[in-house]
Amino acid sequence: MQEFKVKSIGTIYSPHTSPKGTPIQPIGAKGIKGTIELFPEYVPGLKDLDGFSHIILLYYFHLAEDGPMIVTPYMENKPRGVFSVRMPGRPNHIGISVVRLNTIRDNILEIENVDILNGTPLLDIKPYVTTFDIFQTEREGWLSPISDEAENKKCDGRFS
Amino acid sequence: MQEFKVKSIGTIYSPHTSPKGTPIQPIGAKGIKGTIELFPEYVPGLKDLDGFSHIILLYYFHLAEDGPMIVTPYMENKPRGVFSVRMPGRPNHIGISVVRLNTIRDNILEIENVDILNGTPLLDIKPYVTTFDIFQTEREGWLSPISDEAENKKCDGRFS
Repeated sequence: MQEFKVKSIGTIYSPHTSPKGTPIQPIGAKGIKGTIELFPEYVPGLKDLDGFSHIILLYYFHLAEDGPMIVTPYMENKPRGVFSVRMPGRPNHIGISVVRLNTIRDNILEIENVDILNGTPLLDIKPYVTTFDIFQTEREGWLSPISDEAENKKCDGRFS
Repeated sequence: MQEFKVKSIGTIYSPHTSPKGTPIQPIGAKGIKGTIELFPEYVPGLKDLDGFSHIILLYYFHLAEDGPMIVTPYMENKPRGVFSVRMPGRPNHIGISVVRLNTIRDNILEIENVDILNGTPLLDIKPYVTTFDIFQTEREGWLSPISDEAENKKCDGRFS
């Protein structure tokens, strides 16, 4: 086992002030706006980002606690392996969300479709690119019949 | 600025033994096979994962060095903000690849379309789900006219 240090490069602000009630995916957060406050030293790295309508955010689930290897997901009341679900309580507390990028002004990014908790430490921004990020799946396991329901599911706060 | 510790949960093995020549995206690695050796304590977390044809890997760019905020991407000989490119030399060295999951046996996952360097520390596995991970973009910035070319681009080793 190796350990690595990661650091926050900014903070994500959103209307989701507690885990309970937070949408569990961006598709359940349509129209919900948020703000990224990037630390000033990283502002030069934003060059050219305003050309992209969608960005991938990597962030640290700062309120999540380590959970067991078998979890009961929000989506269904059945025990599942933690790597087959998208919940915060996983070995490394790293989350991914693809959000809409509305505007950038200095170190402030206005974003939309935000399923991220207020005050979440930001780790990275990458451009979302159709050619790189869209894959045709053949099987989507236990989520296949129910993934659409994520639109209406909220976090119940069980991981913090 | 906050620091967080992350840990490897396994190791990714691939035919890409040096950065130079490694494909820069999974679309440039079609058919290239690799193996994940998960550390034994995480094996129970693999339950249900075999139902998914595609998985998201988060990993640590272990050979990357910190780079400047303005970089020249592999794709084009023009200076770009680091957050508008997908290269390893970024503030936090976390990479994402969506690969095909072929088989799981005990702690060994056979994967395909691998653009990841041999010996890379694995941080997380999440299921790739069409409903959660496919977004319609309106703008893809500087990559828009050339993203298809990533299929034939290789890393030139500049980040390690």
